[in-house]
Amino acid sequence: MLHAPLYAGVDIGGTKTLMMLAGADGVILSEWRTTSDVETEPETFFAAILGSLRAEASRLGHDPNAIQGIGFGFPGVIGPQGILTHAPAFPWREAAVAEILRKQFDGAIYLDNDVNAAALGEQWQGAARGIQDFLMVTVGTGIGGALFLDGRIYRGAGAAAGELGYSVLAAPVTQPAHSASPASSAPGAPADGNAFGQFEDMASGSGIGRLAREYLAQLPNQGRTSRIAQLAGNDPAAVDARHVLTAAGQDDPEALQVLQQPLDYMAIGVANAVSLLNPAMVVIGGGVADSGEWYVTQIRERVKKLTPIETKIARATLGNRAGAMGALAGVLPRPE
Amino acid sequence: MLHAPLYAGVDIGGTKTLMMLAGADGVILSEWRTTSDVETEPETFFAAILGSLRAEASRLGHDPNAIQGIGFGFPGVIGPQGILTHAPAFPWREAAVAEILRKQFDGAIYLDNDVNAAALGEQWQGAARGIQDFLMVTVGTGIGGALFLDGRIYRGAGAAAGELGYSVLAAPVTQPAHSASPASSAPGAPADGNAFGQFEDMASGSGIGRLAREYLAQLPNQGRTSRIAQLAGNDPAAVDARHVLTAAGQDDPEALQVLQQPLDYMAIGVANAVSLLNPAMVVIGGGVADSGEWYVTQIRERVKKLTPIETKIARATLGNRAGAMGALAGVLPRPE
Repeated sequence: MLHAPLYAGVDIGGTKTLMMLAGADGVILSEWRTTSDVETEPETFFAAILGSLRAEASRLGHDPNAIQGIGFGFPGVIGPQGILTHAPAFPWREAAVAEILRKQFDGAIYLDNDVNAAALGEQWQGAARGIQDFLMVTVGTGIGGALFLDGRIYRGAGAAAGELGYSVLAAPVTQPAHSASPASSAPGAPADGNAFGQFEDMASGSGIGRLAREYLAQLPNQGRTSRIAQLAGNDPAAVDARHVLTAAGQDDPEALQVLQQPLDYMAIGVANAVSLLNPAMVVIGGGVADSGEWYVTQIRERVKKLTPIETKIARATLGNRAGAMGALAGVLPRPE
Repeated sequence: MLHAPLYAGVDIGGTKTLMMLAGADGVILSEWRTTSDVETEPETFFAAILGSLRAEASRLGHDPNAIQGIGFGFPGVIGPQGILTHAPAFPWREAAVAEILRKQFDGAIYLDNDVNAAALGEQWQGAARGIQDFLMVTVGTGIGGALFLDGRIYRGAGAAAGELGYSVLAAPVTQPAHSASPASSAPGAPADGNAFGQFEDMASGSGIGRLAREYLAQLPNQGRTSRIAQLAGNDPAAVDARHVLTAAGQDDPEALQVLQQPLDYMAIGVANAVSLLNPAMVVIGGGVADSGEWYVTQIRERVKKLTPIETKIARATLGNRAGAMGALAGVLPRPE
């Protein structure tokens, strides 16, 4: 039985959890997925993860108690006290994750949200290797953001930094200043107060899918013969962002049209963040970016016209492994 | 003659320079203004400042060589090598400020742009005392921004962080996704590529003044009898942002109308920065904020509706002394 220290990275998702075991040198010895049993109590949920990590260590011929540290990425907010909140994938309103883990595991623990973990992963082994100042943006079901500033994750005063998805984009003035208009109607601020939901609704992968389905529904025969619908098995109702991006990469004019506004929105959101932060790099990840280089190229060209601040815009290279790798990077011993 | 160590803060403006001398405890012994002789060579310019500081020290009964450190705030970008660029108030394309000062002064030197210096000042003695994470926004001729994150000024990869004034606000979608529109027309990105100038043109003090003059010009008798013009000595052409804000504070409906869009723009820019950074506070300074509490109250109410991230929005308290005080704070010995 091997007794060398082991470290684990765990990326907890709403349906699947990705786990990795590595040596102190960061070389990954094993990685595997389990189903996230979100319906169970937090204590049981984490006991199952620890059990899986220890079983895998044993299977590899290691002492199961050789695990010295575990990093976790969560689909939610991890507060300063290690309490998980805003995790809609779980029925738990909040979970005292640090406290629960402390009772079950006595090594080092690193807890963070999944986007921060992905940023750490990209900085360790991905697109942002050696970069000290970058913005990570993930475009998938929603829009996530992480700030890596001056060589570390910046979390903000309430552990909520990075919410690029809440960006509000307002109408440039079209009416003269003296025209009558109700004083309470800020552009981009509809009466229901959900101004900050519009950007994510438009620019996320879910938004792209919805826009495409709306577009196709207005075509003759529900757009069944369009390239986008073909890619979805000729079923317009099954179209999602991947089909639209694949078609756009093949220069399909309908896909290009559907994507125009989502791309414009995202580029403006990224450009505004670049003007504010002056990052050396913007790393774009998530399902939409994973679909290919085309999306990132489009964002790069648009951002250039929207801010005079120069930056490099790169596609994330670790795909859906970034979170677990970053969680692992968060507990690995620092090289001397 | 007193030999106790002295420290200086110098805020260099395009027309006036404000200087301060303080003891090691930060108690300000003297402050005075000189004319900024921008037409001279940089060497002469800084020699004059050093001469003024030493003369004032002597006048106070101190050894003129007791000055241990000088902090400077500049109306331009200070690069990592202490080189001043982007300073339109000066005819110098760039000036090797650190090198020039090093030849004339052998104490500690702190160099920064004026907005970063103002943020340091507000953190030291002003609105942000004890706050570790805040955004400073100055609204005057232009729009400036500074990021104080995790207890220090964050400068970004190229010393250009904080450019809230480059924000681009785009039209929410009003046309259906299937309507024809040229693929190159990003909302907020006019053909001339100046998308990032619009925000500052609209939301700055200069912008407010221009909007007011345009508004008045369309009224009968050029709006000479409006409250706004009355405040400018019945001269509509002399109206600037101060007159508009004063009138608005008196509930003048015309002023409220002129300010609606500048306030909406600024609130959206601030809200987007709050969503991205999750700061404990936003400090609003500059000439427009100095005009009274009304402006900041308006921004506060709007921002609340534009981001779910909570923050405190406060008016800067040091006025136009913030830059010199922050420059001074930048060289004072740290308390043990």
